[in-house]
Amino acid sequence: MTFEQLRYEVAGRVATITLSRPDRLNAFTPVMAAELARAAAAADADEGVRVVVVTGEGRAFCAGADLGAGSGTFADRDRGGDPPVQGTVDGVARDWGGVASLPFAALRKPVIAAVNGPAVGIGATMVLPMDVRIAAGSARFGFVFARRGITPEAASTWFLPRVVGISRAVEWVATGRVFGADEALRGGLVSRVVPDADLLPAALDLAREIADNTSGVAVAAARQMLWSMLGAPSPWDAHRVESRALAELGRGPDAAEGVAAFLAKRAPAFTTPLGEGPVAGVPPWPQPPDDVAP
Amino acid sequence: MTFEQLRYEVAGRVATITLSRPDRLNAFTPVMAAELARAAAAADADEGVRVVVVTGEGRAFCAGADLGAGSGTFADRDRGGDPPVQGTVDGVARDWGGVASLPFAALRKPVIAAVNGPAVGIGATMVLPMDVRIAAGSARFGFVFARRGITPEAASTWFLPRVVGISRAVEWVATGRVFGADEALRGGLVSRVVPDADLLPAALDLAREIADNTSGVAVAAARQMLWSMLGAPSPWDAHRVESRALAELGRGPDAAEGVAAFLAKRAPAFTTPLGEGPVAGVPPWPQPPDDVAP
Amino acid sequence: MTFEQLRYEVAGRVATITLSRPDRLNAFTPVMAAELARAAAAADADEGVRVVVVTGEGRAFCAGADLGAGSGTFADRDRGGDPPVQGTVDGVARDWGGVASLPFAALRKPVIAAVNGPAVGIGATMVLPMDVRIAAGSARFGFVFARRGITPEAASTWFLPRVVGISRAVEWVATGRVFGADEALRGGLVSRVVPDADLLPAALDLAREIADNTSGVAVAAARQMLWSMLGAPSPWDAHRVESRALAELGRGPDAAEGVAAFLAKRAPAFTTPLGEGPVAGVPPWPQPPDDVAP
Repeated sequence: MTFEQLRYEVAGRVATITLSRPDRLNAFTPVMAAELARAAAAADADEGVRVVVVTGEGRAFCAGADLGAGSGTFADRDRGGDPPVQGTVDGVARDWGGVASLPFAALRKPVIAAVNGPAVGIGATMVLPMDVRIAAGSARFGFVFARRGITPEAASTWFLPRVVGISRAVEWVATGRVFGADEALRGGLVSRVVPDADLLPAALDLAREIADNTSGVAVAAARQMLWSMLGAPSPWDAHRVESRALAELGRGPDAAEGVAAFLAKRAPAFTTPLGEGPVAGVPPWPQPPDDVAP
Repeated sequence: MTFEQLRYEVAGRVATITLSRPDRLNAFTPVMAAELARAAAAADADEGVRVVVVTGEGRAFCAGADLGAGSGTFADRDRGGDPPVQGTVDGVARDWGGVASLPFAALRKPVIAAVNGPAVGIGATMVLPMDVRIAAGSARFGFVFARRGITPEAASTWFLPRVVGISRAVEWVATGRVFGADEALRGGLVSRVVPDADLLPAALDLAREIADNTSGVAVAAARQMLWSMLGAPSPWDAHRVESRALAELGRGPDAAEGVAAFLAKRAPAFTTPLGEGPVAGVPPWPQPPDDVAP
Repeated sequence: MTFEQLRYEVAGRVATITLSRPDRLNAFTPVMAAELARAAAAADADEGVRVVVVTGEGRAFCAGADLGAGSGTFADRDRGGDPPVQGTVDGVARDWGGVASLPFAALRKPVIAAVNGPAVGIGATMVLPMDVRIAAGSARFGFVFARRGITPEAASTWFLPRVVGISRAVEWVATGRVFGADEALRGGLVSRVVPDADLLPAALDLAREIADNTSGVAVAAARQMLWSMLGAPSPWDAHRVESRALAELGRGPDAAEGVAAFLAKRAPAFTTPLGEGPVAGVPPWPQPPDDVAP
């Protein structure tokens, strides 16, 4: 599996995806979008991967869309026949940001963004579907779209208000302001700010805390329930899905091992593979439009 | 009204429910689930009760599901014919956690959790539908399900992201980490941390602040609107429900008394009983599935 | 355009709406409700206005409903034939709070509330659909409805839990407590607290940061997406709307100017007018009931 604009490495049950156009501050292109989607799918399918970390090479995380095409950059969203646009929405070519970000929302494994430097435009929005964002002290963020005359993308208008609250979301988007790691922390955009040298170790420590202690099927089912219940009208919807998942996993080998290990005060050794498709009967996100494949 | 695994006491218009298996750290059982549902219904029906406080006896709040059945604990969710399982969901026996927690979501009175010690597994999830959580300094929390090979329950996949945000929710659930009161406070899981000896007084002070100053029908209608509007697509849905409730209560004796007392700079004396069913025309939660009675 | 109970002024592309019954602490009346709706519509339609600031004259922001009618104040919501009630909801006269607040939710421009003093009852709820709330040190807030025997209004049961979280929302509403700017800041109700004398300058600085740097059509489309996606079940819904908006704006003159200005390291000069109706194909709020015009 080879990539042109990112690196994909698996070690210790953690897949690390590194945006890799350091000479362009990892500026985003249609090639990178398709490669991110492919990398997410690879991490999802690999039974040897429990957690995914996403970071950037060099001094930036991602400086935003590559503006090399100049003032016409956003005029033709369908440029780049290779890789192809993956679909259309109401007859409109899909936003490349969503092509890159939505596969991380659909992933059956936790995703940790390690934001190592400037994350601007699509660099800021692509990390929103990831579960945890840790920032280096030198990270900067900017939802700069309105300063370029365009709108936010990558499904960020759904994610951002849920991650940072609606007031902060509108303020950041309406000003298009670029701000530092401290403002990101105060606003809830990142869970922690660490010195630059500690960033990847912190992300990998968190990844290993998950990989070493928990059942993969349990985490996959829980992650999907937590995210998709944001779209459910009432807790009784959760009760229905949870009852089914708990009944299925409760009968399984991981539940027996988890309880036995706890009672014996030893580390658990979970074995159940994810397999393909939904885990423990947890349905995918509600009603994705037919013409937008998750 | 007698209970085996909890205590139920009413004093000064506050009902206090105390989990009471102190020799087992108040570990959760199907009996406790059914008794919690029964206690919630009793508090809801008693016109002499304005506010509910839930706490634990001894040094724990609730250490989680009783694992006395060993590694098969979660294999048969339908065990315990007495009290009976209250229903099924898609042919699956209902999660006992939801049997215990959902009646607190449906309650027409504010509920304050006073978390006096470890609250792990169902001990952590059962407090999420309660309105306010106050923690003692010695409280600890853990959404440990994935470490036992199972999924979160008690409708917590709906409640947790709404209470603490989606990023914190996934981090706590995916790691299964046990954490202290300070991390709970920083993450928004509790509103306050107080010294152990001050916990119940703090909870009762808040309960009395509500009971002494407000109209019961007004609080019941407002609580149901605030929670259920989390599932409504737009503020125009709220406008419809609020217009009806305000018209009904605005004509009532509590509105006349509330305004008269304010203008006279005296304490109000509200008299309107809750009666049965929805208050002030506020509909219950949207679309509970037919097979899951609230 | 003249108003009786507020002032409406436009300067530097910022419209400032000032509640103006200072001898009554800007207490709310049906006349003020209709005038707020009219002022919001005027700001929406004026191509020379980019941002709206709302504040109060004198020492209060808004002390709540005018209780001059005494204990019968809330008994007849349909009083005041001039201006007329704008509609009915299920045969009930519309809540005047919603008549005043919902036009600010529907506005196509950012709204900043500068809370200069007490904001109680409708004074506290009317600011919730506004995007950013900045408080003076002397501001106070109170969701006092239950102390008057009535329920919250102005669609606040939809907005408040989304702005401050469900637990804080229920605590403030169930107690009816009046609290200061510091508690409002800790609870996320306001983004900042500034000395009284700095309040309007701070609000105007933020307004100018938006007006001077961003495209009006881009901000209008983004604001509507961010708010209305709070009611959408999944991020794929956002992907559909964003793809269409980005395709439309990406071909437009503001995108060309925004990228050109950025590459030239000069300030952008955006020119695209909002026109009438939805911007960039972004649909309005989901499913407003037929009988409640937005």
